[in-house]
Amino acid sequence: MNAFVLTESGAELRRDWPRPAARPGWTRVRTRVAGICNTDLELMRGYMGFCGVLGHEFVGIALDGAFAGARVVGGINFACGRCDECRHGSERHCPKRQVLGILGADGVFAEEFVIPQRNLLVVPGKVSDHAAVFAEPVAAACEILEQLGAYEVGPALVLGDGKLGALVAQVLAGAGFEVTLVGHHVARLEWLEKRGVTLAAVRHEARRYALVVEATGSAAGFADALAATKPRGTVVLKTTIASRHEVDLAPIVINEIRVLGSRCGPFGPALERLAEGAVCVEELVDGVFPLERMEHAVRRASEKGVRKILVESDCESD
Amino acid sequence: MNAFVLTESGAELRRDWPRPAARPGWTRVRTRVAGICNTDLELMRGYMGFCGVLGHEFVGIALDGAFAGARVVGGINFACGRCDECRHGSERHCPKRQVLGILGADGVFAEEFVIPQRNLLVVPGKVSDHAAVFAEPVAAACEILEQLGAYEVGPALVLGDGKLGALVAQVLAGAGFEVTLVGHHVARLEWLEKRGVTLAAVRHEARRYALVVEATGSAAGFADALAATKPRGTVVLKTTIASRHEVDLAPIVINEIRVLGSRCGPFGPALERLAEGAVCVEELVDGVFPLERMEHAVRRASEKGVRKILVESDCESD
Repeated sequence: MNAFVLTESGAELRRDWPRPAARPGWTRVRTRVAGICNTDLELMRGYMGFCGVLGHEFVGIALDGAFAGARVVGGINFACGRCDECRHGSERHCPKRQVLGILGADGVFAEEFVIPQRNLLVVPGKVSDHAAVFAEPVAAACEILEQLGAYEVGPALVLGDGKLGALVAQVLAGAGFEVTLVGHHVARLEWLEKRGVTLAAVRHEARRYALVVEATGSAAGFADALAATKPRGTVVLKTTIASRHEVDLAPIVINEIRVLGSRCGPFGPALERLAEGAVCVEELVDGVFPLERMEHAVRRASEKGVRKILVESDCESD
Repeated sequence: MNAFVLTESGAELRRDWPRPAARPGWTRVRTRVAGICNTDLELMRGYMGFCGVLGHEFVGIALDGAFAGARVVGGINFACGRCDECRHGSERHCPKRQVLGILGADGVFAEEFVIPQRNLLVVPGKVSDHAAVFAEPVAAACEILEQLGAYEVGPALVLGDGKLGALVAQVLAGAGFEVTLVGHHVARLEWLEKRGVTLAAVRHEARRYALVVEATGSAAGFADALAATKPRGTVVLKTTIASRHEVDLAPIVINEIRVLGSRCGPFGPALERLAEGAVCVEELVDGVFPLERMEHAVRRASEKGVRKILVESDCESD
């Protein structure tokens, strides 16, 4: 089958890749649409030292098991189910976990892949393939509300005008926050205004926000986030910045700021929001390629300012 | 009167300093014992640009007002009482606040000083002057429990073998945590073992602790704290590190760590713990000087490894 495979000598489309074998407790899935994520691009630059089939954002058709024939999305962390973390409900932090297309497990840029059946969720009929493929990043945005626990709604600031920033802004606005999204290129996010999000250029008021989400992907974003946060407010740190950076930690202590690291999230609430149309994702798609043209798709995804690039692995997608 | 005053040309003992005038709503306090804090030493190096009488850790005798004649300690933040922060119970973060001996208000290294009456608490009889003067740092340690909200007790790690580390370790041990305190010079903290604190050299197990308190005062401490914290665990950041440092923020996101900046705390619970003997502070005193020898006291407090230096401003102290 066709598969986009990363090896030590680089990533390329392989036409002779073996189909994955059936495994007890695992489901074979035929990929319909996959999304290229910044993490994929970082993996190609050597992050995590991953080798294998890339890709972790998908919607597909289950080929066997309890969900056979259904359209599914699924959680990307494959936990051991037995360690301390797993037994305390923190499967996503299992130290022995594999991660789909990221760590020790082949991913979804292929005609077929396998995934533990317990990771799968059936996609509601009204969610299109091009929307369902966003389940993973929408889940990552929903994770913020889970982590906040009980929260008072009020003004919230989202730093970053990329995909994640746009999704986070919509999830927070949907939860009742008065969201301002700040970035250098907010013009192309005008459609967010209909969803109650205020767009702004880079300047924002110091110490004004009880909730600030850092989704810029840049080192300067963290300092900006701290400066914009009220005393005793919360900064949610969404982007992993791979390298080390100079940071002044004093504002965290002086203003007793809470910093929450935030990664993957719950797929159920993400599918709900997509089904309700509470989060719009189609506007974030900047191109759709067939799997056969994966190399072109990756090149396009790497261009500055390009947001979501989708890859269709058969012709049935809508 | 005698007062230890910081001006642009440095800090010195002034013998001709005017006694503070009475003010409505404020109480004049005669200092009995004051403590030299690292913040005082930093102020002398130019931090905050403060000019005036230094000192904010004190126990004294109220000379007027509702508490006249009583032995008192008191909160160091003088809030405006009218702004948004104050109206929401965050007086310690009032943007217009003065801070005793730190920001816009003369401090306690003097025979007398003034403080808003609402900031004062009467010291229980069984708490000695030399213990009561620790009310402020013990309160800062108690603040951690306030910030954690509902918490499960379990293994906790305290990084730093200075005064604050020793106080934090005792407060956490008293709350039921199994505390390990890590530092280069833990030998002199052996008395903490009787209080249920395990002492250890610098190495500690990675990703083991649900609660880690950073109280080293050094930049490396934060990275160490992140490494020792379990996924979804909490790092409490206690020390303000004035300069900028290279920090890798990725572990915060990957392990979804919560970082809590933590500064001043509640005096009530601090006095309670001192009265019950639940926190021992006397072992941390490395010297007692009369106010007349303030310059010597400061020199001693600046020596490497020296912990609390106390200053007595009259001969009645016990």
